[in-house]
Amino acid sequence: MLKCYANPSREQWGELCRRAEQDNSLIAERVVAIVDRVAEQGDAALRALAAEIDGVQLTALQVSPSEFEVAEQRVSREVKDAIEVAVKNISSFHKAQLPHEVRVQTMAGVECIQRPVAISRVGLYIPGGTAPLFSTVLMLALPAKIAGCKEVVMCTPTNKQGEVAAEVLYAARRCGVDKLFKVGGAQAVAAMAYGTESIPKVDKIFGPGNRYVTIAKQLVSGRNTSIDMPAGPSEVMVMADSSADVRYVAADMLSQAEHGRDSQAIVVCDSAELAEAIAAEVERQAATLERGAYITESLANSRAVVFSRREDMIAFANEYAAEHLIVSMADAWAVVDNITAAGSIFVGNYSPESAGDYASGTNHTLPTSGWAHSCSGVNVDSFMRKMTIQELSSKGLKALSSTIVAMAEAEGLEAHANAVRVRMKE
Amino acid sequence: MLKCYANPSREQWGELCRRAEQDNSLIAERVVAIVDRVAEQGDAALRALAAEIDGVQLTALQVSPSEFEVAEQRVSREVKDAIEVAVKNISSFHKAQLPHEVRVQTMAGVECIQRPVAISRVGLYIPGGTAPLFSTVLMLALPAKIAGCKEVVMCTPTNKQGEVAAEVLYAARRCGVDKLFKVGGAQAVAAMAYGTESIPKVDKIFGPGNRYVTIAKQLVSGRNTSIDMPAGPSEVMVMADSSADVRYVAADMLSQAEHGRDSQAIVVCDSAELAEAIAAEVERQAATLERGAYITESLANSRAVVFSRREDMIAFANEYAAEHLIVSMADAWAVVDNITAAGSIFVGNYSPESAGDYASGTNHTLPTSGWAHSCSGVNVDSFMRKMTIQELSSKGLKALSSTIVAMAEAEGLEAHANAVRVRMKE
Repeated sequence: MLKCYANPSREQWGELCRRAEQDNSLIAERVVAIVDRVAEQGDAALRALAAEIDGVQLTALQVSPSEFEVAEQRVSREVKDAIEVAVKNISSFHKAQLPHEVRVQTMAGVECIQRPVAISRVGLYIPGGTAPLFSTVLMLALPAKIAGCKEVVMCTPTNKQGEVAAEVLYAARRCGVDKLFKVGGAQAVAAMAYGTESIPKVDKIFGPGNRYVTIAKQLVSGRNTSIDMPAGPSEVMVMADSSADVRYVAADMLSQAEHGRDSQAIVVCDSAELAEAIAAEVERQAATLERGAYITESLANSRAVVFSRREDMIAFANEYAAEHLIVSMADAWAVVDNITAAGSIFVGNYSPESAGDYASGTNHTLPTSGWAHSCSGVNVDSFMRKMTIQELSSKGLKALSSTIVAMAEAEGLEAHANAVRVRMKE
Repeated sequence: MLKCYANPSREQWGELCRRAEQDNSLIAERVVAIVDRVAEQGDAALRALAAEIDGVQLTALQVSPSEFEVAEQRVSREVKDAIEVAVKNISSFHKAQLPHEVRVQTMAGVECIQRPVAISRVGLYIPGGTAPLFSTVLMLALPAKIAGCKEVVMCTPTNKQGEVAAEVLYAARRCGVDKLFKVGGAQAVAAMAYGTESIPKVDKIFGPGNRYVTIAKQLVSGRNTSIDMPAGPSEVMVMADSSADVRYVAADMLSQAEHGRDSQAIVVCDSAELAEAIAAEVERQAATLERGAYITESLANSRAVVFSRREDMIAFANEYAAEHLIVSMADAWAVVDNITAAGSIFVGNYSPESAGDYASGTNHTLPTSGWAHSCSGVNVDSFMRKMTIQELSSKGLKALSSTIVAMAEAEGLEAHANAVRVRMKE
């Protein structure tokens, strides 16, 4: 049963915004050992670890053209059609995000440019496990290709028979992934960060994963390879008033809850009656769903919070900074325009989280655990960098020279001043 | 004397692109202890650490209005005028970078929006040490204000007398920093990441620092606070051909070398004669400069690399991914248009690095150590996040429903499909 909190004081907000905590200290040491072993021994370590950890005997690490062809035949027409719709929508929304070059003449003879450039090589991690998450292939590979990355590498674990789900293979080929490897876990992250005989070293690693994957990404991000964002369990917040449909709110909370045992679903509403009605409907629908074990456990992390004042609902939502924020309120857009921290916002009664999870066009790789205070979800920018370029004419430098020399001297950096003076001697 | 390498083989490139390595394992443990102590004990820990580590007795942590006024009187007219020119140029280039909202109707009734929002609270770290780096105040505080951050907090260490350099205080007030604290080192990073009685918790921390600061930033970036980018020693690469002026190339290499003992300056050119002439000119100019100890040591990390083919010069520059890349070549723009990895590029004979370091308008907080393969320098985006927003009409959701349901079922996520079905029952 959903716990309800009515008008909690500001002091309680921190506690109510807390996510399920993870103690990773025991895993961290094992991850360092795995990553270092792959960095040193390359492909041999990947084969040995697949056998040791997953009980899988891998022959070729890279997925072969014939495996892609078999997969193509296995995926149903219905799923292929669905993927086409999703590809079209995700592509059109992400293409519109492509940044432009910025060019400013800050003074006569001083030209400054900000130029977006694609990251050359990116690595995508797609988890295996209980469900084949081919939608994540779309969400990562399509923006990478739209940004113009030269090489898109993907790693994903196999089942015990050494196979990858047909939908994942099909989606990877459909989205233009250049090379796909049957490697999972922390070792896949290490392979993409350091490169092996088979797997190219990439510049940035993207994608969700279990705690081993997450810790390995964190580790390499402090060494030599960028990552998309810090990762944590998935979460949703629903803001609801009397205009919300209780059945929809409950269904959205449950679709979050089925993701995993540590998922969190929070409803913020304006009356205790509504909170109770939602709690009852969650119970009713939960009884009809599969994945019951996950749902029961993650509902234990979930709660309903009631505020009489709309400003408090908004302030609380901004403090929580939800990965997914559903706003089912009469004046939804007035609320949305005051939201400063969320991963992705779903407005009104007909925008369930699953629309954005799959096919509306927005990306589903989003900041969790409050990281939405400072991080964006994956978007075209995530696959690009911005370089600056400047060209000064001799006149432009002359006009700036006294400024540069004064500042360099005040900072005690004589050689900086000298680099200007030597050019002004003529 | 600069070491020269002529037409090195591809196998040697990795070694030639290597930066000075740092062994941080001994420091890391001390940093964890400092950060945890500040997280637990707040202001008391900051005062105790200032006494223990820096031998400074701090009374108030926050800089008072009267301290700002004294500083204003101490800064020379010349430096104030220089700051005004720099503020104007940096502001105009960074204002032009402000991103726009992206709005796409991916299907009838399916509206997707990408909305840029400022990060609410940011923390800037300005190092103390041998030189008062007030230029970095401009480079961080101006974009933060332009992005629209609500609260801009700054920390900087004091000298033994508990004072901050007048130029730093003046620049902070000029650029609209909201609160300035006399705290330095790893403890400053911890204070901004966790908050103390005096110092607000921020969402993202920016700025350069010594190894303690760098390791502390890395640590909190894995816990609860974003950081601008991984940091390493500063570096420059100069690409030169016969159109380059040897005196300018040498002066630029030396202006990099004076930054610190582990700075690196690399020249890539098209003839051994040019490399030798540059090496001789570096020796000649170095003898005339102060900061000689830094310069001698960092020149030991430096080198000249000669390639007969222009394609190799470009490919090597892209593999190195320099923080600063100066292109002094006859067809400089043709080269620049093929550069895919660099922090900031300086084109032609009259664009010394010090122009961008201080006043042309570009930012000087740039990715080092090869991170330019995947990271941008600080820009207006660094102070913003992009949220997505979607609104589907009932018709829009109906048009997408079979797509979403097919994908959710193929992924085994029944509750995701159910969140759509429950809305389609009417």
